[in-house]
Amino acid sequence: MAIHHLGHEIKAVILDITGVLKESGQAIEGSVEAVNRLLNSGLQIRFCTNETTVTRKDLVSELQSLGFLVDEAKVFPPIPAMCRLLKERNLRPHLLVHQDAVADFSEVDQSDPNCVVIGDATHEFTYENLSKAFQCLMLLDQPILFSLGKGKYYQEHGELVLDAGAYMKALEFLMTTAEPSIKTLLRPWTLDLT
Amino acid sequence: MAIHHLGHEIKAVILDITGVLKESGQAIEGSVEAVNRLLNSGLQIRFCTNETTVTRKDLVSELQSLGFLVDEAKVFPPIPAMCRLLKERNLRPHLLVHQDAVADFSEVDQSDPNCVVIGDATHEFTYENLSKAFQCLMLLDQPILFSLGKGKYYQEHGELVLDAGAYMKALEFLMTTAEPSIKTLLRPWTLDLT
Repeated sequence: MAIHHLGHEIKAVILDITGVLKESGQAIEGSVEAVNRLLNSGLQIRFCTNETTVTRKDLVSELQSLGFLVDEAKVFPPIPAMCRLLKERNLRPHLLVHQDAVADFSEVDQSDPNCVVIGDATHEFTYENLSKAFQCLMLLDQPILFSLGKGKYYQEHGELVLDAGAYMKALEFLMTTAEPSIKTLLRPWTLDLT
Repeated sequence: MAIHHLGHEIKAVILDITGVLKESGQAIEGSVEAVNRLLNSGLQIRFCTNETTVTRKDLVSELQSLGFLVDEAKVFPPIPAMCRLLKERNLRPHLLVHQDAVADFSEVDQSDPNCVVIGDATHEFTYENLSKAFQCLMLLDQPILFSLGKGKYYQEHGELVLDAGAYMKALEFLMTTAEPSIKTLLRPWTLDLT
């Protein structure tokens, strides 16, 4: 049975993950049941996220362990999309990303970097690592910085913690005279609904 | 004998310190002799600096050990000026400054903070410390952030390293919705030339 809303037939639902389905390692109450109802409704379901602190595989494993019926092909985090774009443009990144997410860049050439990619590196946002990313940009004739998000902060374990956006802004300010090409990767993915 | 330049009598000379008199712990060639000539000329000499990684006392000791004839009363770094301003306005800072400079804040009440002061904290610009400064600002009805400088970077031991400005910009971005009062302390000091 087709589902309609405001005169349009709804064919698919795209769900956010962190803060919508789960938070701080716990399923949000009612979310597992809600996803099951959507899956049983015949709608196409995709899961989009700006999560960059884990690999896609680990994120999907966590969701499955929380009871969500989800498979990897239907989950769209920023890093796989970033990797596709890097390959298309022959870009070799210097990475400032979370250690637990770095495996998702394994198929990307990281030698002799010609751009910088930052994600939600959390505790790896040290003075040394931010300096290294900056020094890398300064060595480039055309500095290119990709940020996997521009969020300011989010809540974790009841506390507000910094997101990648703060560090994106710091690097953007540092490179102002060199006019970098700042790209925030928001929705570069395409969803296959066939 | 009075010294004139472009029709004006010159009464005083104000000298920068880091990058002008010394760099990376070494006197810059000819600078000790130049300062001596100025001191012997009868001009008033003052030393201004945006240095916030050491106390004024340690900075003066370093200059003296490098051969400069300088006494503490003639050296004007940002922190003593910042302290005066904090006292005048009954502000109690949460500090994100270099450990070697923190002693210069000893006479300032730091309990129950109602503002944040950042300086060139170098390696103490960790994710945790920046998060703490941000959380402190978020708790204030009227968030006030003072930055002891807005420099982007400087050279040390032949390498470009980040200055306080990058982190000032990150905090400024984080607090945008809360409309903070961002103050960059550039020249709040007054020089006593009498």
